[in-house]
Formats: sequence, C-alpha cells, structure tokens
Amino acid sequence: MAIATALTRLLSITHPIILAPMGGIAGGRLAAAVSQAGGFGIIGGGYGNPKAGYGGKAWMEEQLRAAGNAQIGVGYITWSLALFPELFDQAMERSPKAFFLSFGDEKPFATRVKATGVTLICQIQDIDGAKRALDAGADIIVAQGTEAGGHGKSGRTTLTLTLAVVDIAGAVPVVAAGGLSDGRGLAAALMLGASGILVGTRFWATPEALGSDAAKRLLTEARSDDTLRTRVFDIVRGLDWPEGYSGRAIANDFSRNWHGHESELERNLVREAEAYWTAARAGDTSKSVVFAGEGLDLIHDIKPAGDIVRMVAAEAERLLKTRAGADLN
Amino acid sequence: MAIATALTRLLSITHPIILAPMGGIAGGRLAAAVSQAGGFGIIGGGYGNPKAGYGGKAWMEEQLRAAGNAQIGVGYITWSLALFPELFDQAMERSPKAFFLSFGDEKPFATRVKATGVTLICQIQDIDGAKRALDAGADIIVAQGTEAGGHGKSGRTTLTLTLAVVDIAGAVPVVAAGGLSDGRGLAAALMLGASGILVGTRFWATPEALGSDAAKRLLTEARSDDTLRTRVFDIVRGLDWPEGYSGRAIANDFSRNWHGHESELERNLVREAEAYWTAARAGDTSKSVVFAGEGLDLIHDIKPAGDIVRMVAAEAERLLKTRAGADLN
Repeated sequence: MAIATALTRLLSITHPIILAPMGGIAGGRLAAAVSQAGGFGIIGGGYGNPKAGYGGKAWMEEQLRAAGNAQIGVGYITWSLALFPELFDQAMERSPKAFFLSFGDEKPFATRVKATGVTLICQIQDIDGAKRALDAGADIIVAQGTEAGGHGKSGRTTLTLTLAVVDIAGAVPVVAAGGLSDGRGLAAALMLGASGILVGTRFWATPEALGSDAAKRLLTEARSDDTLRTRVFDIVRGLDWPEGYSGRAIANDFSRNWHGHESELERNLVREAEAYWTAARAGDTSKSVVFAGEGLDLIHDIKPAGDIVRMVAAEAERLLKTRAGADLN
Repeated sequence: MAIATALTRLLSITHPIILAPMGGIAGGRLAAAVSQAGGFGIIGGGYGNPKAGYGGKAWMEEQLRAAGNAQIGVGYITWSLALFPELFDQAMERSPKAFFLSFGDEKPFATRVKATGVTLICQIQDIDGAKRALDAGADIIVAQGTEAGGHGKSGRTTLTLTLAVVDIAGAVPVVAAGGLSDGRGLAAALMLGASGILVGTRFWATPEALGSDAAKRLLTEARSDDTLRTRVFDIVRGLDWPEGYSGRAIANDFSRNWHGHESELERNLVREAEAYWTAARAGDTSKSVVFAGEGLDLIHDIKPAGDIVRMVAAEAERLLKTRAGADLN
C-alpha cells in the first residue's frame, strides 16, 4: 500500500514527501532523485543573488539541466526574488510542476503562477502568514515550525502550527515542515491532519546534495541540541532579511562568538565579513554556516536521496498499519 | 477499542492521557476527575512554597482530601521540593500511585520513591535531562517540548524531543508533553513512539481546575501566537529558578513591558512586586501571570475534564483506525 493523500493526488506523486528547496543545496540532481523515487523534488534557488555564494540565472539554468526530465518544482526566497524579476521569468518559461515561495509577500507572483497552471506552494511560519497565503490562492500550504533548519521564525513549532493551519485551510492540503526526517514523523504529521511532509536537512546528507563533504559529515555528527536559531550569519553575509526571521544552524565558533552581540558584529562588519568569506571559501565549518534542523538527532549517515524517500514512506506505512489498533508502545 | 500502551499497563489506566501537575491549578478535584474518566490525574504541588501564592503542607492536605479515593499522583518542582523535605514525606506517607518530578535533580528523591513501589515519573526538556532521569531509575519519562505552558526550556520542541528520547529510553515508556490537547495530538504522539501524552492547558479550561474564572476565560480567548516564554513573572514573584528555565504565558501588559528588560525589572523589584501582588490578588490578568501552552489555538471552551479525556481518546482511536491505510487528507 502506498499512502495516498490530497498532496499525492495534486502533484501526481507516489509518496507524500517533498524536498525542501534548500538554497544552494537542493540542486537539480537532488530534486530529480527525490522525484524519481516517488517524492517531489524542488530546486532551491534561494536568494537568486550570487552575493549569497551561489545562485542567479546561470546557476539555475545549470540546475534545471541537471534535473533532466524529472517532474520538479522551483523555489525561491520571496522577498529576494522580488529584486530579481528575471529569475521568476526564467523559472516560469520552463513550466515547472510547482513554484515554491517562502518568506515574504507571495501575492505579486501568485497570479501568474496560477494562471499558467503551475501549482503554487506557499510556506508560512504563523497563522497570519497562512491566512495571507490562502488569500493569495496557494494550492498547498507548508506549515514550517521553528524546528526547521535554515531560515524561519522562532514563534511556532511544527506540531502546534500544523494543527492550527489544518483547522483554517479547508480543502487546501497542508504539509508539515521542521524536524521531520523519518517515517515516524510522516505518520505523526498525517495524524495531525497534514497531507505530507517537507524534508530538508535529511536530504542534505545525501551524495546528490550540493555543498561540501565537510558540511555533510558535520550533519551526521552534530546533534539537535547543538543547533541554534540566529541572525549572525545573515548579518555577516550582508543579507538583508526582514524582521522576525532567523536561521537555524549548527552552533560553531562564529555563532558562539557573535550570537547575542549582533550590534557589535555590525560595527565590525567589514573585518568580519572578509574573514567569514575566506573561511567559507576554504570550507571551514567552524566559521561558516551549516544550516540544520532540530531533527539532527535522527541523522547518522549519508545515503542516497531515493533510499531516504523509500525508507520514510515504508516506515510510515508500517506504522499506520501496525499502530492502527491493538497494542502500542 | 481502547488504546493500550506501555503507559496504560504501567499505571492501570484506560486512556494514555496524563494531567500535567500544574502548580496551584491541578488540585485534587481536577486530578480525581481525570483519573475517574480513565486518564491519570496528578496534583500539582508546584513549589510547595506559599510565597508562590498557593501550596505548602496544609494546601496539599486539602487537595489530597479533595481527590478522595481516586488513584492519583503527586507532583512537585524538584529544585523547590529539595527546600521543603516535609512535603516529600507528606506525599510519600499517602502512597500516591505515582510521584512526578520536574525541573531539577531527581536523584535525591528517586531511591525512596522506587523503594516504596510508587511509580517515578520524571519530566525532562533535553537529552541530557533524559539520560539523567533514566540513570535515576525513572519508570516513565515525560518529554516536554518548548510548546508547553508554564515552566520549561526554549531549546527543544515536543516533536523532535519525543523522537530523540524514544530512541534512548529502551523499555521505559515516553510521554509527549507540550502543545497537545486533542485526539490528533495523541495519535501523532503514538506514531512518534510515545506511549501517551501529558496535557496541561486544556485541563485548566475546566470547571474542576483551580484558578480564577477570568484566567480560564482568557485561555478560551487568547491564541497560540499570543503566548511568550519569559522569566519576568518569576523575577517579580521572587522565585529563584535555576538558569535555562522560563515560563510560557499569555502575553499581557506586564510581560510586554518587562520582557527583554529583566535587569531593569530587578532594579525596580520592590515597587513592581508590590504592584504585581496587588494585581494578582485582584485577579487582574492584564498584570498577573496566566501560564498557557502553544496548543491554545485548539481551546475554545471550558468543559468538564472527564469529557476532555473521553473526547481526546475517542478522536485518537478514530484517527488510528480510519487513517490506517486508504485515503488520507
């Protein structure tokens, strides 16, 4: 038995598992691997701003090519995409299966996405965001809890946000995101009323993901209690995030040094930025950022993305069957 | 069908639903109502220090009497109980079905609890805490996420903490706590591998709970996004919590004023404490604390505790049955 939900029907996929469009990490190869295994892969265009260390038109072209004929989506950081309209045009010309927007006002993009029959996926972090996305006509709402790696908010957790969004979303499928990386998480999300899960960090620890081997190795070694939501990596990279957002990353020398001293970091920005980029180019994860979610405790190895899709689905199917009645833990 | 788990077997209860021992709120009447409906009620002795506005030996005596013959447990804040050994003796003399400890070192109490055949329930907020509680011989581990109302920590969420604790707890049943108040939450917790849930805020909004009608009404009106983890109510009440803990409460004029300005509050403590206690005695919830969890979005009414136990169990049973295969949301 496969788990059929409103999400699998809407996207014509086998398993209700979506790849989080991790900027600069979820490239075409990873997106294709997830889709080919029966999930849904989304390329993470991120800022679309080469200043972030990746991204832009040529980068996206390369990733779209790497995805080949796989049915995939394209995702961007909404507030940053607004500064690079040519990237929106580029993606839409390719008629992706879905367009994923997070962190900002989706309205200016929603009309064109919907008019062309592309599925609009909007990720939100609180109830106001969910209402706004529903108003904009989102076909799928991703409820992202504070557990999530990378950018998000600190207010709401995956569990309570998913429940509350399901209660207002009507027929629009809700996907739970943040801290979910195994079949137990998928089965739990389905019980909350979600139609599937969005998985990030677990898919970074794969051979298909972009990013350095050092970063991937760190993902298998660090633990959930080592992760920290912070703004310091945005400040030093000169990325002008709107208020309220922060990024969950594995704590390292840089964040331990500057977290809680953001104003001081801003005063020393020129010096610190130079040192930061030098470390980043050298792949030094003690200084440069490795985003990771609170699900890290469950990640102990690097394995192919397709295996992960199949294992998560199979474990969830088994749990839904065996815990359906009788004796539980 | 009732949901049988390691927890229901260990406590000889019908439904895997435990009342959080909310200090000064979960009195004998509420604990008895939860147990009589098939869950497990625990009296919240809290600090055991009348300075908190409730508690102490006479108060506990009254609550134990109010519980009558119901099979219930007794719970205390561990670090504070260490200051009032006579309260530990009082509870143990009554041979409660279970003794619940949270926030501090359980070791000094564990030996005597276990020696007398009383079930030892330890609530933890992170992996180190879970390891310590397992070492101390806890019979049940409660994994409390940051969603929880009242005291706790900000680091881990119910979802990721439950998963990680289940992975190290072996045969010891794990109970998920924080943000859980309906059958969807119970069903999800079971999928994560928990053996049941601990419910606080939802049980405060009952006629059997202690606390003012104004506070209970506020619980039905405020929303999850209105809650805030803060130390300001501890500071103004002169409660000397160890580092790392904070309390999740509904944001009000007092917390909006002082949160983020803790040192200033400490400098004005005499004046502010007097004003605080005056407001608290008058039941003014715009100044005095109303603890509440992030599950608040799901609470819209005040209803009998027994009804809540039965509804949560019935909804979870239905979900486990109907979402066992076939078509899901």
